[in-house]
Amino acid sequence: MKPLALSPRYIYKIGRLLLSLLVTGAAAAVAESPRNVILFIGDGMGDQQITIARNYLAGAQGKLLLDELPFRAAVQVLTVDEQGKPEYVADSANSATSMATGEITMLRRIAMAPDGTTQLPTILQQAAARGLRTGIVSTASVTDATPASFVAHMSLRHCESPSAMLGAKRSWTRLPHCKELLAANGGPGSISEQIAGSDATLVLGGGFKHFEMPVEDGSQSVIELAEDSGFAVVTDLSQLSALDNKQRVLGLFSKGHLPERLVGEAGRRGEAPTPSWANYISEYLGSVLLPEPMNCVANPAAEGAPTMAALTEAALTRLDNEAGFFLMVESASIDKASHQRRACGSIGELEQLIESVQVALDYAVTHTETLILITADHAQAAQLIPDTSYYATYGIPVFSPGKVARVITPEGAVMAVNYATNGFEYQEHTGANVPLFGNQQAVGRIPTLITQPDIYHIMYRYLFDENAE
Amino acid sequence: MKPLALSPRYIYKIGRLLLSLLVTGAAAAVAESPRNVILFIGDGMGDQQITIARNYLAGAQGKLLLDELPFRAAVQVLTVDEQGKPEYVADSANSATSMATGEITMLRRIAMAPDGTTQLPTILQQAAARGLRTGIVSTASVTDATPASFVAHMSLRHCESPSAMLGAKRSWTRLPHCKELLAANGGPGSISEQIAGSDATLVLGGGFKHFEMPVEDGSQSVIELAEDSGFAVVTDLSQLSALDNKQRVLGLFSKGHLPERLVGEAGRRGEAPTPSWANYISEYLGSVLLPEPMNCVANPAAEGAPTMAALTEAALTRLDNEAGFFLMVESASIDKASHQRRACGSIGELEQLIESVQVALDYAVTHTETLILITADHAQAAQLIPDTSYYATYGIPVFSPGKVARVITPEGAVMAVNYATNGFEYQEHTGANVPLFGNQQAVGRIPTLITQPDIYHIMYRYLFDENAE
Repeated sequence: MKPLALSPRYIYKIGRLLLSLLVTGAAAAVAESPRNVILFIGDGMGDQQITIARNYLAGAQGKLLLDELPFRAAVQVLTVDEQGKPEYVADSANSATSMATGEITMLRRIAMAPDGTTQLPTILQQAAARGLRTGIVSTASVTDATPASFVAHMSLRHCESPSAMLGAKRSWTRLPHCKELLAANGGPGSISEQIAGSDATLVLGGGFKHFEMPVEDGSQSVIELAEDSGFAVVTDLSQLSALDNKQRVLGLFSKGHLPERLVGEAGRRGEAPTPSWANYISEYLGSVLLPEPMNCVANPAAEGAPTMAALTEAALTRLDNEAGFFLMVESASIDKASHQRRACGSIGELEQLIESVQVALDYAVTHTETLILITADHAQAAQLIPDTSYYATYGIPVFSPGKVARVITPEGAVMAVNYATNGFEYQEHTGANVPLFGNQQAVGRIPTLITQPDIYHIMYRYLFDENAE
Repeated sequence: MKPLALSPRYIYKIGRLLLSLLVTGAAAAVAESPRNVILFIGDGMGDQQITIARNYLAGAQGKLLLDELPFRAAVQVLTVDEQGKPEYVADSANSATSMATGEITMLRRIAMAPDGTTQLPTILQQAAARGLRTGIVSTASVTDATPASFVAHMSLRHCESPSAMLGAKRSWTRLPHCKELLAANGGPGSISEQIAGSDATLVLGGGFKHFEMPVEDGSQSVIELAEDSGFAVVTDLSQLSALDNKQRVLGLFSKGHLPERLVGEAGRRGEAPTPSWANYISEYLGSVLLPEPMNCVANPAAEGAPTMAALTEAALTRLDNEAGFFLMVESASIDKASHQRRACGSIGELEQLIESVQVALDYAVTHTETLILITADHAQAAQLIPDTSYYATYGIPVFSPGKVARVITPEGAVMAVNYATNGFEYQEHTGANVPLFGNQQAVGRIPTLITQPDIYHIMYRYLFDENAE
């Protein structure tokens, strides 16, 4: 049967053309309806983390909500050093900067060029300037690298508060200062002060401790600065829901980061295997004692804390308006838990992200011009390895040189998560490209592999360029 | 402007319908043209390996050919134990079995159910039975797990030859036997004998040593068995190209696996960082000496060996026919190099895969009904970590507890590849979902996440069900 003389390829092209004409017509037809972008960032949510979470939450053969979205692509994570030379592993500051600004920058930079002084305008700031509502939701302190990169500019990510500008302390050392960016020196001041003075519609997350302190010149607290610039400052969800929807709001729901949902039983993390003495003589000798398998249990510290889904829901209620909005939602502790070898923590925070994506998808059912993207800023240390080494059948005591969390999954198996990027108490990020998921609005707008700066351009086009046509 | 009163969603659906009608018409128009499937397997080619190769071959901001294909999805790798309980990390035998047969099985099984005796029919065997031409190309010995899973059935992957059936020797141990599957015991005999007796049109790769030995009963060599069953046996490309295109052929181009294209200079691999004595007292003390950065150089042993692209080209020339074909092409040593911490080896073999995919794409320009899929069987140990630890700025000597290959990239930076799944001389596989790439024929036929057995079903439908309509 030969109904048409054209080649299938040619016919396919005609079909695409017809379709694109129809879609263009449709876009023109609704130019008045507002356009919204919701960008979800799973911090450290590479394919290893997603597979680990899928195995636990849905089973090895199950599907996560992310897996059932109509769009999936991959993203190149890009970092440069001071000379512009590539570095192959990012941190959350430079990778969030790429997504927020469309530019490639150095480790630790918050919406700042590699030179450390050129501020890069962010999509959130550009949306606010054009009259859209804008929001940030994070399970981290809102001054943390990912949220900060959308609303602030800083050469070093740890300069989160007026005191940190002078050189923050960590347990082991004093971090470099950012004195040249103090307001007194003509700079924008600390990240918390910049957030307090920002024109975001809402900023919801943790980090109260960075706001209760005095501003740089000591004249008031950072909270008072926020109130002066029009924010209502709240610390629990009931205060938030009592506010008029038009009220700009800074919600600080914990002193630091919000608590993780799941923890290893008895607070257990990845632990070192213990070889027998004979194994020190030869790797072929002796035996090895692996850490006991562990269950993931609810974190008592998370009781009463707002869920990421509840914060996302509150944000969408407040951002919904006739001019459109930009919202960034971060699940921060997929990464933070992985740094500290808490496999259960990463799993629970990936679950929180998924619940929040569901909230956004529900919103988009009645607000169809909403582009929902879900991605990671970088890959992370957690690595799914065989619970029993492939070589164990040969009687050789083979084991990870790092630390291993052996998690008991609900489907009754043991999943070994290896942390071996370093031997230090904080693991490193890794450099693999990361996944990008999207709703139907992403289909046809994004190729199969993009760079992280492309995410900015895609969001910008969707909000402003296509909308202006 | 409101050219149409319909909602954009509705219009989009109409567009899709129109398109699908056109495409259906096109498919009907060419029902007589043969359908072909080419499945590329990058052994161990997870997203870490792809990123490592991209950074080296195209630069951090560059794109590989795979990245520019119109289709990209992800694949869940599934393994079960004897009781059917999930295991979270696969080997090449059970994962290739999934793709070849549509079934989930145990580690080490070659197209065999978990019970170790039930043979699972493979897509290659089914294609051959229906009169399609069929082929295998591999840079490994053709008896290795991946190619074997498409043409043979065996409970333990290492039973590659008549002698191995009795219990193969490895440097450190004697492996379990497969005596119950000897022909004398009513079984199918070793993998090399099964290949020799198979009805594949062509099998090209390495592994001469598994064929030059006598068959199980000693009456002839496995090569003679292959010749008796209609194969011409060749050992170089000129012999191959001299053969009539209709001649079935077994090409064995090296004793074992084909040589890798790239090696680390001076044969270097991933090496252990050397901390100073003070670091043994506390991880905060002392310093660390990282292995020197290395260049990747051409492997002298690969000179004169056929490239994977040349083998793919030869295979396509011989498989092209009016009834269609199935071809599996494996780049085996992305994995083998990674097991032994040879980052350059993995990069070079990924490059070989890409060149071979280009050959297939070129073929598909004039043979449009050719579905080209490229995937990995499982992820691997190689992990891209920061060359300078994120924590090094604090003066702490942070380093990998495993081994690290610091590869100098053509764009002039150093890329640190970490091997730390175990401390043994062979690294482990890892469990992340793996990428799937495809040509235009894949678009619209495959969702964004599938399981490895789904690959079988997709190929089957494309070759047989859709073709029968």
